[in-house]
Amino acid sequence: MGVEKKILVIPGDGIGQEVTSWGLKVLKTIAANYHHSFTFEEGIMGHVAIEATGDPLPEETLQKAKNSDAILFGAIGHAKYDNDPTLKVRPEQGLLKIRKELGLYANLRPIKLFDELLEASSIKPEILRGSDILFFRELTGDVYFGEKKRTEDRNTASDLMIYHRYEVERIARKAYEAARTRRKKLCSVDKANVLEASRLWREVIQEVAKEYPDVETEHMFIDNAAMQLIKDPKRFDVVVTGNLFGDILTDEASQIAGSMGMLASASVGDKVGFYEPIHGSAHDIAGKGIANPLASILSAALMLDISFGLKTESQRVIKAVEATLRQGYRTMDIANKHTENDFIMGTDAMGAKVL
Amino acid sequence: MGVEKKILVIPGDGIGQEVTSWGLKVLKTIAANYHHSFTFEEGIMGHVAIEATGDPLPEETLQKAKNSDAILFGAIGHAKYDNDPTLKVRPEQGLLKIRKELGLYANLRPIKLFDELLEASSIKPEILRGSDILFFRELTGDVYFGEKKRTEDRNTASDLMIYHRYEVERIARKAYEAARTRRKKLCSVDKANVLEASRLWREVIQEVAKEYPDVETEHMFIDNAAMQLIKDPKRFDVVVTGNLFGDILTDEASQIAGSMGMLASASVGDKVGFYEPIHGSAHDIAGKGIANPLASILSAALMLDISFGLKTESQRVIKAVEATLRQGYRTMDIANKHTENDFIMGTDAMGAKVL
Ligand SMILES: CC(C)[C@H](C(=O)O)[C@@H](O)C(=O)O
Ligand SMILES: CC(C)[C@H](C(=O)O)[C@@H](O)C(=O)O
Repeated sequence: MGVEKKILVIPGDGIGQEVTSWGLKVLKTIAANYHHSFTFEEGIMGHVAIEATGDPLPEETLQKAKNSDAILFGAIGHAKYDNDPTLKVRPEQGLLKIRKELGLYANLRPIKLFDELLEASSIKPEILRGSDILFFRELTGDVYFGEKKRTEDRNTASDLMIYHRYEVERIARKAYEAARTRRKKLCSVDKANVLEASRLWREVIQEVAKEYPDVETEHMFIDNAAMQLIKDPKRFDVVVTGNLFGDILTDEASQIAGSMGMLASASVGDKVGFYEPIHGSAHDIAGKGIANPLASILSAALMLDISFGLKTESQRVIKAVEATLRQGYRTMDIANKHTENDFIMGTDAMGAKVL
Repeated sequence: MGVEKKILVIPGDGIGQEVTSWGLKVLKTIAANYHHSFTFEEGIMGHVAIEATGDPLPEETLQKAKNSDAILFGAIGHAKYDNDPTLKVRPEQGLLKIRKELGLYANLRPIKLFDELLEASSIKPEILRGSDILFFRELTGDVYFGEKKRTEDRNTASDLMIYHRYEVERIARKAYEAARTRRKKLCSVDKANVLEASRLWREVIQEVAKEYPDVETEHMFIDNAAMQLIKDPKRFDVVVTGNLFGDILTDEASQIAGSMGMLASASVGDKVGFYEPIHGSAHDIAGKGIANPLASILSAALMLDISFGLKTESQRVIKAVEATLRQGYRTMDIANKHTENDFIMGTDAMGAKVL
């Protein structure tokens, strides 16, 4: 008996367009092989949506999103806005709004190295081997959503870094639950020696920790965490942190996985699950057909597992990625500079190999 | 003809006590050998000051600081406060207050690898070799100093991330001036795709950039910067960023220098210069006599150069550190796990070798 699911696909900007088509093809193939009925719709968001409608998250896309079971997203952003900080309407507003509207408060970012990519990282293999970290990044609070102000003379600008107890509590619980199924270690990252929001964060984690006496809790300052992550990634199991610190640490942690092009993420909360690569729109390589489709494919795998509970199907996708890597197929970003045994290929060739 | 200088020494907390005595001894030795007249005073700050006076920065220390030409500082912080986020009086308040009171708005953190330590890092030698980054971290603004609030029910906490145009301008100029004397590349790090304070930051950098057409300017998002720093550290020359992002990036960058125990920093602004290791009070190893004194010694070298203009003397100290490393002497944190040619020693033995 297959399952019936409605999936919204939002390719977004830049390489989002190229890579998301492969996540989609993988979902279609899984549906066909395992007799599930997935129906797909497409939505626009980001720069492409601003160009088409003036709005980075058109109402139509938002409605489709609310009516779907899960969303496969690509990437967002465009150099035009990065170069002109005075523009009022910006692609990223679409992503932030959909996160908020769908109540996607927990962003899961699993960082795990495929053995085949041990050499692709700038970090030494002996430091990396065996690393397996699961980040829980809070996704609908913090300085991302606090009030933004600009004085009339435009000379002063501010953003409010703010957390409420319930926001910390709910992400803490999710992280602790996950830690229980893993190596039973949780590291909470904050800057409690300077920030009041971090002191609240730490207080709440300390309280929730009492409900999970079987999990070992550690508190770490963000500056130290940014260092330890590179120095000794194996010391981490589950990491839970705020929106801004999570943004920084998970991008940094991409070096543990060999490349950003390998990392998928799941955002969950109220009901709909949202799946996306952690990489950005990468305008420097967009349209060239060289982007790594694996993060989008692995995002599809996360969707199968987390939103649909289809563990066998999810594992099947991950195994296909592993097999492809084992055979030496690589996109540019994960090519091994030291050996000549790799076959370097573009987005579509790589996607086809996995399929 | 020697110079006459008044130096305030503030060892602070934890390993600050152990390592700062070596920075001090180096300054005394330089004074003797080069016929300078340095007079030294000592001040308390941090947890030790709270214990003694109830105040993390006693008025007496602040007055001595204002009357000195330069300050050699150790470290700040204590596990007691880290474990209890509800405590009102905290060691770090002393450090933040002295930075503000002395107008130390520019924190310079040079990251340069001593060739002898190529193997001590978790990053591959071929990625590291030749890295040489100079960070300018803004030090008296940002979310560190914006208004902090806690609601009466204690369930909501906030810190204001705020920047004023003049704050960005003055640090930008310092960074551009330095870039001119180096490889003429400046990378400004922000999160302008999300934060209003970062959009102001980026606007001001773009304006100041026009005054330095000979310097190549690049803007990078903090998440990407945290990744690039590990992936390809050689791409950076001068990096300028805000207080919080600078805190995170420079700790992370310590892995480029092999160990945090190697990194010195200079904070400058209005008049007095303030010199400190970038490492913290490290309570886990405090009192054991195993901390690396080189960051304190290199902080003394920075003082000689930046505050006193004594370039020869400063170079003499750096050469002594290099020679010590070349002979294979190491503290634990920089020991090479792969060879047995190192002589591992404690704080005092290492300091004595440099002397
Ligand atoms: C595009 C940007 C708004 C976004 C963020 O900062 O959250 C991205 O960096 C991410 O991590 O998903
Ligand atoms: C101790 C702490 C307040 C301080 C900071 O965050 O500025 C430290 O981490 C530093 O980098 O000097």
